[in-house]
Amino acid sequence: MLTIVLAESALETVPKNLWRHASVKRYSKKRKKHPRFLLLDRSYHHASMKTLTQSEKRGRPDIVHFALLEALGSPLNKERLLQVYVHTINDQVVRVNPEARLPKNYNRFVGLMEQLFELGRAPPNGPALLKVEPETLSQLLTQISPTRVIAFSTNGKPRTLKDVVLKFSSEERPTVIVGCFPHGHFSKSTIRLADEMICIDKETLETWTVISRVVYEYERTISLHLKRLKR
Amino acid sequence: MLTIVLAESALETVPKNLWRHASVKRYSKKRKKHPRFLLLDRSYHHASMKTLTQSEKRGRPDIVHFALLEALGSPLNKERLLQVYVHTINDQVVRVNPEARLPKNYNRFVGLMEQLFELGRAPPNGPALLKVEPETLSQLLTQISPTRVIAFSTNGKPRTLKDVVLKFSSEERPTVIVGCFPHGHFSKSTIRLADEMICIDKETLETWTVISRVVYEYERTISLHLKRLKR
Repeated sequence: MLTIVLAESALETVPKNLWRHASVKRYSKKRKKHPRFLLLDRSYHHASMKTLTQSEKRGRPDIVHFALLEALGSPLNKERLLQVYVHTINDQVVRVNPEARLPKNYNRFVGLMEQLFELGRAPPNGPALLKVEPETLSQLLTQISPTRVIAFSTNGKPRTLKDVVLKFSSEERPTVIVGCFPHGHFSKSTIRLADEMICIDKETLETWTVISRVVYEYERTISLHLKRLKR
Repeated sequence: MLTIVLAESALETVPKNLWRHASVKRYSKKRKKHPRFLLLDRSYHHASMKTLTQSEKRGRPDIVHFALLEALGSPLNKERLLQVYVHTINDQVVRVNPEARLPKNYNRFVGLMEQLFELGRAPPNGPALLKVEPETLSQLLTQISPTRVIAFSTNGKPRTLKDVVLKFSSEERPTVIVGCFPHGHFSKSTIRLADEMICIDKETLETWTVISRVVYEYERTISLHLKRLKR
């Protein structure tokens, strides 16, 4: 079983101090929703985001979308050997049911996330596929209780992914932290939570690229591809 | 050098016989563009698509979007060792400049593709990052002149990706064909063009999952990850 935590994810509703900004008001009118119920999205709110703290790490639901599609569509997840959590930059945690089939269309994904932040769960009725609660990364990790935590960063120790995965696949509850923001680095509080920081490429790789590689390498290490082909 | 061809991709403008359909007209009004300049998209034109031939394989620009992001963001592409072509279900071929940085936002990607189909190139001026021309998959392959063509399909021979890539990486111009449509199988004319059909998983994998795995396995086989870490 592999656990992946998307950390400091660029996923949040429009912060209150931006509600009166022209670009936000225009977007709110077009979407026919109050800004409190809308996702912050740099594609539409770029002009308003200049004054935000840590602005460069925020407002990119598209990264979360792709990262989740990569993880949930993998054979590892189909075998129920993968658990994914989304920790956001504002210390909320989204719990993702491995059976969730997320919309592939971006606008529908945004609608689903907005529903999630409004109601705390999605869909509104029946078994929850997504749940969100205020929670720090530290609290989440305490609950996961991993036997080893690896974080990926260009600031980490240079190692091949193969070696890293080979080593942690023998752990009982290995957990991987991948940053889910467009620019910048992990905060100090995130770095403190990792047993090891690893650099698998000197250039920053996209979040979804790291996820797809970790998952595939893990499948390869546990010979999942062979088991599935032989069925 | 690896060549990837996204085949029979679910990417096209709205076909003429759908222009008068209510869902298309509504969408056209909202987007303020004539349907001939709009991408067919099942998320918005589902109701109108029932009468289309091969309907289940069409109208999914999101799959092309994500597949291209996976390919172009890879270290292999950063090293200029990857060439990607998008062959569409209507026999058009999009040539993708490896230096192209595609929009990560879906709606912007759709806008770019619409510009591409309208003008034959994008951006309108300066060096072309994307070009589109009428061309069959057979014509494209004649031009690429591959030394070996592998196509991935659940109907193929069961083999591990590792073995497949190990074998073809010694080729001078290996070319991989990946279907870029949501359901169904390759057409007979596509199947005829492949030297070998390979099944790497008994369940259908998402196009972008296959792409990310092929690229990563190829990088691993040529030890690109080691070379990049040592710099």
